[in-house]
Amino acid sequence: MGKLKKNAVLVVIDVQKGWDTYGLSKRNNIDAELKIAKLLDIWRSSGRPVVFFQHMSKNPISPLYPGQSGNEIKDVVKPVAGEYIFHKSVNSCFIGTDFEEWLRERMYDTLVITGITTQHCVSTTARMSGNLGFTTFVVSDATAAFESKGVDGTIYDPETVHAVSLATINREFATILKTEELEELL
Amino acid sequence: MGKLKKNAVLVVIDVQKGWDTYGLSKRNNIDAELKIAKLLDIWRSSGRPVVFFQHMSKNPISPLYPGQSGNEIKDVVKPVAGEYIFHKSVNSCFIGTDFEEWLRERMYDTLVITGITTQHCVSTTARMSGNLGFTTFVVSDATAAFESKGVDGTIYDPETVHAVSLATINREFATILKTEELEELL
Repeated sequence: MGKLKKNAVLVVIDVQKGWDTYGLSKRNNIDAELKIAKLLDIWRSSGRPVVFFQHMSKNPISPLYPGQSGNEIKDVVKPVAGEYIFHKSVNSCFIGTDFEEWLRERMYDTLVITGITTQHCVSTTARMSGNLGFTTFVVSDATAAFESKGVDGTIYDPETVHAVSLATINREFATILKTEELEELL
Repeated sequence: MGKLKKNAVLVVIDVQKGWDTYGLSKRNNIDAELKIAKLLDIWRSSGRPVVFFQHMSKNPISPLYPGQSGNEIKDVVKPVAGEYIFHKSVNSCFIGTDFEEWLRERMYDTLVITGITTQHCVSTTARMSGNLGFTTFVVSDATAAFESKGVDGTIYDPETVHAVSLATINREFATILKTEELEELL
């Protein structure tokens, strides 16, 4: 695999305080935020573009509802002055935002996707990114899944949800790699 | 749950002959095509709208590449005169097509999604459908999954891929139900 483009965009999705209210026992990759922080350091020091998404839930009882502390981006990955923050209210970063136009205007064609959760916002954004023609990477240890419940009540543990979610986007929509593998491409 | 709207659209995605070349041992829900055929009968006899998607692969070695028999829609679910067939070349029915405009023009706001595969085209279309604001149903026994390979080489069997794919869209993007549960809503 060749080197990553100099203008590859690091996408940090919904790393917000409210997730912690769901209980860390129900998610995997507890270090995901630290991996994202590490990638942010690398991206910033090399002058590569970074973009944040902040989920503005429309559900008043969601911990990610605007105006409460759970809606805030976690301190460990806090945006700095001048960095772009898109607000969204559905899973996909491409729906209800002008993210696609933002990317096209800047001739950015490569996305490196991180954030929470693997199975919802990360998976949906990676699927659309690939289908829209962007070269798409998902950083497996810089995302995290929560357990999911099937319609018959079966609970799928977070590690299974994470692994199957990534397997089903692997190669079809995105290249899946770990933070340390990504570093070797920089 | 209330009755299904009279103009709920039955969406039949990529039920094409070429899938069989991957081997039926690697997929689940061998009866999915028969369930779709049953739903088509019900939709047609009640005058509800039906729409088909046919995948036009851009990869010359794909069994779904145009111009070869694998690209054809299976006889068991063959469209009849006057029914709409959209062509697409990525997973999502909403990307590279005017499907969204087609739905909005007709004031269709409810989609009942069926087809192949659960984890790729069905999941991606259901995710976008929900995020675009359409009321979305996925018929679990009228879709089928193939095994998926993780980036570490792990093979996830088709039943697991199917179940986890549906669990991760369940409630967040779509309502998941079986053909016979759907019939009770008609």
